[in-house]
Amino acid sequence: MENIDLTCVNAIRVLSAEAIQKAKSGHPGLPLGAAPMAYELWARHMKHNPKNPKWFDRDRFVLSAGHGSAMLYSLLHFFGYGLTMDDIKDFRQIGSLTPGHPEYGTTPGVEATTGPLGSGIGMAVGMAMAEAHLAAVFNKPNFKIVDHYTYVLAGDGCLMEGVSSEALSLAGTFGLSKLIVLYDSNKISIEGDTDLTFTEDVEARVKAFGFQTITVEDGNDLEAIGKAIEAAKSDTTRPSFITVKTEIGYGCPAKQGKASSHGEPLGEDNVKELKKTLGWHSIDTTFDIPQEVYDHYAGFTRQYEAAEAAWDKLFIDYVKKYPEAKELWDKYNSNVDDKSLLNDNNFWAVSDKAEATRASSGNILNNLKDIVPNLMGGSADLGPSNKSIMKDVAYFSKDDYAGRNIHYGVREFAMAAAANGMYLHGGIRPYVATFFVFSDYLKPMLRLSALMRLPLIYIFSHDSIGVGEDGPTHQPIEHLAMLRSLPRLNVFRPADATETAAGWYTAITSKSEPTALVLTRQNLPQVKGSSKEALKGAYVISEAKNPDFDGIIIATGSEVSIAIEAQEELAKDGVDVRVVSMPCMDIFDKQSEEYKEQVLPKKVTARIAVEAGTNFGWGRYVGVSGVTVTMQDFGSSAPASVLFKKYGFTKENVAKAMKDLVQK
Amino acid sequence: MENIDLTCVNAIRVLSAEAIQKAKSGHPGLPLGAAPMAYELWARHMKHNPKNPKWFDRDRFVLSAGHGSAMLYSLLHFFGYGLTMDDIKDFRQIGSLTPGHPEYGTTPGVEATTGPLGSGIGMAVGMAMAEAHLAAVFNKPNFKIVDHYTYVLAGDGCLMEGVSSEALSLAGTFGLSKLIVLYDSNKISIEGDTDLTFTEDVEARVKAFGFQTITVEDGNDLEAIGKAIEAAKSDTTRPSFITVKTEIGYGCPAKQGKASSHGEPLGEDNVKELKKTLGWHSIDTTFDIPQEVYDHYAGFTRQYEAAEAAWDKLFIDYVKKYPEAKELWDKYNSNVDDKSLLNDNNFWAVSDKAEATRASSGNILNNLKDIVPNLMGGSADLGPSNKSIMKDVAYFSKDDYAGRNIHYGVREFAMAAAANGMYLHGGIRPYVATFFVFSDYLKPMLRLSALMRLPLIYIFSHDSIGVGEDGPTHQPIEHLAMLRSLPRLNVFRPADATETAAGWYTAITSKSEPTALVLTRQNLPQVKGSSKEALKGAYVISEAKNPDFDGIIIATGSEVSIAIEAQEELAKDGVDVRVVSMPCMDIFDKQSEEYKEQVLPKKVTARIAVEAGTNFGWGRYVGVSGVTVTMQDFGSSAPASVLFKKYGFTKENVAKAMKDLVQK
Repeated sequence: MENIDLTCVNAIRVLSAEAIQKAKSGHPGLPLGAAPMAYELWARHMKHNPKNPKWFDRDRFVLSAGHGSAMLYSLLHFFGYGLTMDDIKDFRQIGSLTPGHPEYGTTPGVEATTGPLGSGIGMAVGMAMAEAHLAAVFNKPNFKIVDHYTYVLAGDGCLMEGVSSEALSLAGTFGLSKLIVLYDSNKISIEGDTDLTFTEDVEARVKAFGFQTITVEDGNDLEAIGKAIEAAKSDTTRPSFITVKTEIGYGCPAKQGKASSHGEPLGEDNVKELKKTLGWHSIDTTFDIPQEVYDHYAGFTRQYEAAEAAWDKLFIDYVKKYPEAKELWDKYNSNVDDKSLLNDNNFWAVSDKAEATRASSGNILNNLKDIVPNLMGGSADLGPSNKSIMKDVAYFSKDDYAGRNIHYGVREFAMAAAANGMYLHGGIRPYVATFFVFSDYLKPMLRLSALMRLPLIYIFSHDSIGVGEDGPTHQPIEHLAMLRSLPRLNVFRPADATETAAGWYTAITSKSEPTALVLTRQNLPQVKGSSKEALKGAYVISEAKNPDFDGIIIATGSEVSIAIEAQEELAKDGVDVRVVSMPCMDIFDKQSEEYKEQVLPKKVTARIAVEAGTNFGWGRYVGVSGVTVTMQDFGSSAPASVLFKKYGFTKENVAKAMKDLVQK
Repeated sequence: MENIDLTCVNAIRVLSAEAIQKAKSGHPGLPLGAAPMAYELWARHMKHNPKNPKWFDRDRFVLSAGHGSAMLYSLLHFFGYGLTMDDIKDFRQIGSLTPGHPEYGTTPGVEATTGPLGSGIGMAVGMAMAEAHLAAVFNKPNFKIVDHYTYVLAGDGCLMEGVSSEALSLAGTFGLSKLIVLYDSNKISIEGDTDLTFTEDVEARVKAFGFQTITVEDGNDLEAIGKAIEAAKSDTTRPSFITVKTEIGYGCPAKQGKASSHGEPLGEDNVKELKKTLGWHSIDTTFDIPQEVYDHYAGFTRQYEAAEAAWDKLFIDYVKKYPEAKELWDKYNSNVDDKSLLNDNNFWAVSDKAEATRASSGNILNNLKDIVPNLMGGSADLGPSNKSIMKDVAYFSKDDYAGRNIHYGVREFAMAAAANGMYLHGGIRPYVATFFVFSDYLKPMLRLSALMRLPLIYIFSHDSIGVGEDGPTHQPIEHLAMLRSLPRLNVFRPADATETAAGWYTAITSKSEPTALVLTRQNLPQVKGSSKEALKGAYVISEAKNPDFDGIIIATGSEVSIAIEAQEELAKDGVDVRVVSMPCMDIFDKQSEEYKEQVLPKKVTARIAVEAGTNFGWGRYVGVSGVTVTMQDFGSSAPASVLFKKYGFTKENVAKAMKDLVQK
């Protein structure tokens, strides 16, 4: 290792340790151990241009072990991404560009929000899928305009999480040869040595997934790391997994090799000891980086600028030579036209026959697949049931990366992670699908979609006891509440085909919020009165007879038609009610106070909510004395029609509940 | 294969197919393919006594591929567990003993509720852990009173799910040699051939986890299956994984080897064709089982009775010889004494110093560890942070199965699964721990705890923006709502050490509901007024000055002391409010109407809820016009004290909100 290289590596270590020490909070263990591999990768192997962190053909880097954020910020600082020393000093403080874990959208150069372990691996797999797809669609002879790697740095914790197994298995199946995992193998987790609970042969496992595996015995050996990365690149059929053996907390005598170096500042004295051990030039002053370090980093940066300039030129020539491809490229890289879709009669056309909303959704998806050519997605092995398959569209596979349907296998978590990764990569509009009850399996990733403001589309079919015979393990009860309580997510449960179109419209035009489409297994009638008003989240779907009506029934999805039948029953008994369809609470809550008052006038206090899910969350619409016809416990195994009756989702029961309330 | 064996295997196939056909719903693919391995296992290798499905030393069998329920019910019918032919005919009907997926507590002989894929593998690992622990604690020379295997039958879907990787890695680490996995490898999942999305080398992966792997090339070869099971038993250091190559839908010409056989009835004609192909004696009549089949099964049953009788005798001798061990055995197999714990001053003793509720919880756990000697648990690698370690207690490991602390590694889902399995096994009172935000990772298993009515204890620390610098990926916002909306779960968020004791009391005395203890990272003052009244879920913790007070502030956890400070502020301005602490909505909702009215009188409509989580679910307490001081979006990275101020969790802000409300 040249001396200046070592100094530059140590600069990452020292700056990370000092930032953490100043914040009195953070994780020094990883930066100290993994700095060499990060440095070598970013300096000599990764294609990136710090002057333009959004350059389309850059290599992607995901720090799956997100707690090592201080290292990532140090890299971004030294490589000239615009993070200043003040930003570094502001580590983990309110409103800073350097939050505790890397946050996408906050810090230039951060490709994904990470921290929940294993998630970064899953997202990196999605990025590599996006690259493979775009390369297959757009590259032409001598015009490899999409040609980059995805690197992910992961720790022991990432590899212990099940999602990493799912994701790596998927990557192996798809032969994503431009995915390169750097495994920071320091054999330490929070509770101690990994021998305590992680004795498996990680390399053998990953090899079994279909990876090339490479081991670097000494994590401080830049040359060996560099060779391993090049060996990884040279395998054009398999993804690669590089085990880099490191020492956590390297260079800090009191802490290295110990779990205590993982998640707390080293301590002022230990930072000094670290600097002494590393031969750092200044011991007592902090944040003191020699100019030669900056100069050396700047040398690399100039190469990167040249690389992007060459690509820019190539792209200009490509556009000239392939104007049609450019047209498609632009479609891939732009949003759907909201207004034209709003007025697209074909999009909004619905059958007048009874239809499951999952079937309506399938029809709409198949309408959209041509309007949105970069729509790409699939199901966790439930495509035929979720109606999430695009007809006459190829499947993404190692033999055909141009395919847009995806077989995800029974891997919900990795599916959502991959979809996040595809969107983060750019160029792809991803959707995923599974049974609603299995939203449980992917909740951690749905949360990251929302946190990162990615407009992913989640298709959740089989949305209630309407699942029927499969029983309580397959019947969602609490899932609407679970998802509605998540910030920045639109949960849309349509009552019929028209509302399903509204849900899809919301989803496909969204720019910063994911959407969950919650769909029935069973057929539903097309509701007279359903309309594009559903785009407001809630609306009067069946008005009362008189302006001075007695009560309001609020319903969603499969229960809207029951509510309307109850309205008719009640009319016979002289009780006059309005029926409000509320497909999306989240959107309704954002409407003007006037509109909300118009739909749910405060003076009308006799209110009932009808929904085949828990009552949790309905209090704010029905009030302290309100009534709900909802599920108070888990469901059971029986035909759906039997269950709807058993649990009171009948016009008679809803009508009775309203009568009781009005007569109170 | 003897002819009668084949007939008995085919009886399982035919009965399963007919039950599914009659129900017009179900999954015939697995029963047809896996019947031979199930038959061979249950008939000749598994130690069980159908006359006593609860015999303590029986081998456990978990059908992880729970959709194959018809096969399990057929086994239970033929082996004489008491499932009648009428029960079989009632498959998937309301209130039957034969629901769509196996349900623990519903059907004698069903060891676990399965269906959500992969979960059964995780629970089986927990059962094997329980067996290993109990054997280590109780067995004596010549008295192996705990000595049984745990078998789990899993399909491709189970193996694709991440949780199975987590669980098998754990099993390998712990060297659970009495865990035997039968992998029904039929190479088909719902979307088609596993080559589409599951090309990994499963055996190599599982070997990497530390398993012995064995392959049976022909899933119809009973002898080969038998040999494989015996080879699995003979490995006393590693768990075993037997790949049994089968054909899905075997015997049904139109369906075998096809995905279409997986999840829908074969069709009446195909059932007939199946019976013809199998050489079944009656083609047109259904549910027609020859007496020789029952006779042959009965022959096995008699052996089992003898096995239990021998064990009963052994146990009597054991009790005589080791009366002290028997005393401990009884403690392991009984519940804690509610009343004595309620009056145990030591249990309820608290410090008067400020303390994080996670620390209070740690103290209580360490009190309980001697009172409840079968308390066994650990964390997903966050023990020191969760304060979930029992001091001076050994760790469970392959060198010491008597240990009660568990290093779960970063595997939340498998941890919860294993804990479910330990409780299902019997003899163990399990708890698990992680950060509250990572409840997302184990939600599918928490749901199964609730569905099965297992009183598991979930310790969730770091419960809000109080997490501080780690930022929004680590700050729970929606998780209280997510868990409160789950039926049969008590979510307990204590305000101080006394309420934490109440939470633990609720948890440890519960017989049929899991409890989530939601605990702070940061120190909280001991609240004047906190008491055992917390056991009611909500209570007046700081009364208003006058009976005719102006409003109510409802708060939980870390916000209770802020609410009381706000109460004092308001008093200065002449606004008289009551403060209600509501550590557990679920329990409060079950109190008498009188009590609820006493705590939250309907006439007092000026109500504010204060909680550092989403407002979702508070409407039923504060009403349509109520106000909440809650989190409306994700948090951010900064010191906790900064965040509490930023997001309005201050006495001034709460007081202002109440004043605004009262003055309206």
